[in-house]
Amino acid sequence: MEIAILGYGTVGRSVRAIAETLPELHVRRILHRREVPELGDLVTLRPEDVFRDAAVDTVVECIGGTDVAREYVLAALRAGKHVVTPNKNLIAAHDEELRRCADEHGVTLRYTAAAGGGIPWLYNLRRQARADRITAVEGILNGTCNYILDAMHREGRSFDDVLRDAQKRGYAESDPSSDIDGLDTLHKCAISARLAFGVPAPEDALPVFGIRAVTDEDIRYFKERDLVCKLFMQAYLTEGGYAAYVCPVLLPSDHLAAHVPANNNLVSLTGRYSGLMSFYGQGAGGDPTGLSVIEDLLDTAYGARIDETLYREQELPLDLDRVKHRYYLREGKEAILTEPLAPGELVKMLRAKDPCDFFVAEIRE
Amino acid sequence: MEIAILGYGTVGRSVRAIAETLPELHVRRILHRREVPELGDLVTLRPEDVFRDAAVDTVVECIGGTDVAREYVLAALRAGKHVVTPNKNLIAAHDEELRRCADEHGVTLRYTAAAGGGIPWLYNLRRQARADRITAVEGILNGTCNYILDAMHREGRSFDDVLRDAQKRGYAESDPSSDIDGLDTLHKCAISARLAFGVPAPEDALPVFGIRAVTDEDIRYFKERDLVCKLFMQAYLTEGGYAAYVCPVLLPSDHLAAHVPANNNLVSLTGRYSGLMSFYGQGAGGDPTGLSVIEDLLDTAYGARIDETLYREQELPLDLDRVKHRYYLREGKEAILTEPLAPGELVKMLRAKDPCDFFVAEIRE
Repeated sequence: MEIAILGYGTVGRSVRAIAETLPELHVRRILHRREVPELGDLVTLRPEDVFRDAAVDTVVECIGGTDVAREYVLAALRAGKHVVTPNKNLIAAHDEELRRCADEHGVTLRYTAAAGGGIPWLYNLRRQARADRITAVEGILNGTCNYILDAMHREGRSFDDVLRDAQKRGYAESDPSSDIDGLDTLHKCAISARLAFGVPAPEDALPVFGIRAVTDEDIRYFKERDLVCKLFMQAYLTEGGYAAYVCPVLLPSDHLAAHVPANNNLVSLTGRYSGLMSFYGQGAGGDPTGLSVIEDLLDTAYGARIDETLYREQELPLDLDRVKHRYYLREGKEAILTEPLAPGELVKMLRAKDPCDFFVAEIRE
Repeated sequence: MEIAILGYGTVGRSVRAIAETLPELHVRRILHRREVPELGDLVTLRPEDVFRDAAVDTVVECIGGTDVAREYVLAALRAGKHVVTPNKNLIAAHDEELRRCADEHGVTLRYTAAAGGGIPWLYNLRRQARADRITAVEGILNGTCNYILDAMHREGRSFDDVLRDAQKRGYAESDPSSDIDGLDTLHKCAISARLAFGVPAPEDALPVFGIRAVTDEDIRYFKERDLVCKLFMQAYLTEGGYAAYVCPVLLPSDHLAAHVPANNNLVSLTGRYSGLMSFYGQGAGGDPTGLSVIEDLLDTAYGARIDETLYREQELPLDLDRVKHRYYLREGKEAILTEPLAPGELVKMLRAKDPCDFFVAEIRE
């Protein structure tokens, strides 16, 4: 297989390094925004050197973002090249357009690493969904939030203190909004819901609550009650519809997901035949993510038709009013446990409030 | 795909029921030891009706055991039919012979459900091992033992009491030896080690300690020290060799595997690139196991070459003397914590003792 890598950052480098150990994969070209002296002619700054090279059969997109990445992925697909990408922003925003383009040109689009990073979550979700009826997916898909909440639980430290520490260690961005406000998790929630149920799951319709306002007092309150706080994505079938949203949850301390340490992820599916099944591992990082990309490349090389088979679209409405939970809700210094509320009711209740002013978490019985 | 199912027990029934929901799979024949009135001509008692039927392209072996199952699987492979089997006894005893026979006849042999039941463990282990270097596999692969240990921990009940309860619920056989003496786990350990490292891992050379002699006093001692006892299979690379064995372990209470409830399984791999990755779910049961078989069938139908690619045999010796642990060892009423011992030393120390007289568990720091 002759590969071109677009973008030579952390993941692009790992993809190249792992590919070099495998006889099946050959990196023919790297498109980057500047030259890389030690790589010489392997690197080009001109996109046409990739898209017009008939010998390149597969393109790995590691640019990130949605604009240039979308343009280049479409160009690659239209040029009859398979595409593998770990880009959750791109897939959350444009998966339908890209998948249709791939179908039209008889090539494949794979994106296992777009949710769960090093964990073959999306791959297994798709593989299970071929024959099982998936009724729910949920779990921890943001390592930054898990690192923060885990450290707050273990060490009793404040949110700001732990966030600074996470930034120092490279587990959080200098602008952490996308992680701590739940937007990164929302992308992964939408992608997971689409693959699980075949629904459109438009991101702007899905409720999202983050962890920006959680305090060490909140965590102390949870610990005293033997509860563990985690940021969860959840999506499930309801009677006649589906729900999908991102919200902190309070798990009983014997729940498997309550024991996910540091910046790891754990994500689960429930199937009619399989029951509950969970996948745990590194949700990010160059090598784990790079390996996920490499496995997608090998599946492409060996023709494993996992991402193309049996994808069934369902005309199901978004239904946020069916399943009710009690919530822990704190505004300022005042915490209450709500009556059972549906996610839709919670959103209405908290609409127009500034997310810096309250912290809300769903209570799991 | 035209399928024949050999053996119409719990798993065979689930395979047929799920296959009927999928347009890709058609059950053409069922070989059983007696007629099944409601299935009429679909059922045959004559093996040649399967092996001589050129229209059958894939055979699912659900007979169990190693004698007839081996004979029939070889007959199917030699007749040019793909085979899928969940039979751990068969694969642990004869995988090399069967794999070679499949290769010779240009067909595939898949057995995801042979370890981990409903969990796509072996499938994912193989998929990850294509590109990663797996350095260790370990975990809980016997639901009966996990059910017993979990109930003893939660409820403080005695081994015999919980075992009787497990037998009533169908989680334990009337003769539970294979489960509680670790032999079932040993099969899965050997199969996992072979796929992870490409080593022969002969079962009779691998140490195995079960849970037959564990008492409620032992469990109370562990709980007081915030330790959780689980029966583990372990296999890992050492300097220049590999180790593989089955032994109870004492996990710190914040370990993910310490929180596996009831009869579930959790199994992990460590890869050079992926780091630690874990898979959780139902390790047995008709529908979960049947679904695993169905997924293998779909992979066969769609030509996903996961089980054939990149299998690298390694000439590594079994090395049980490199990695040392402390052990909890109780004989009669007397419990000691040993000095650090290698598994090989432990085996020598306990050789010729009756496993009903002592309980041993490796202590994880």
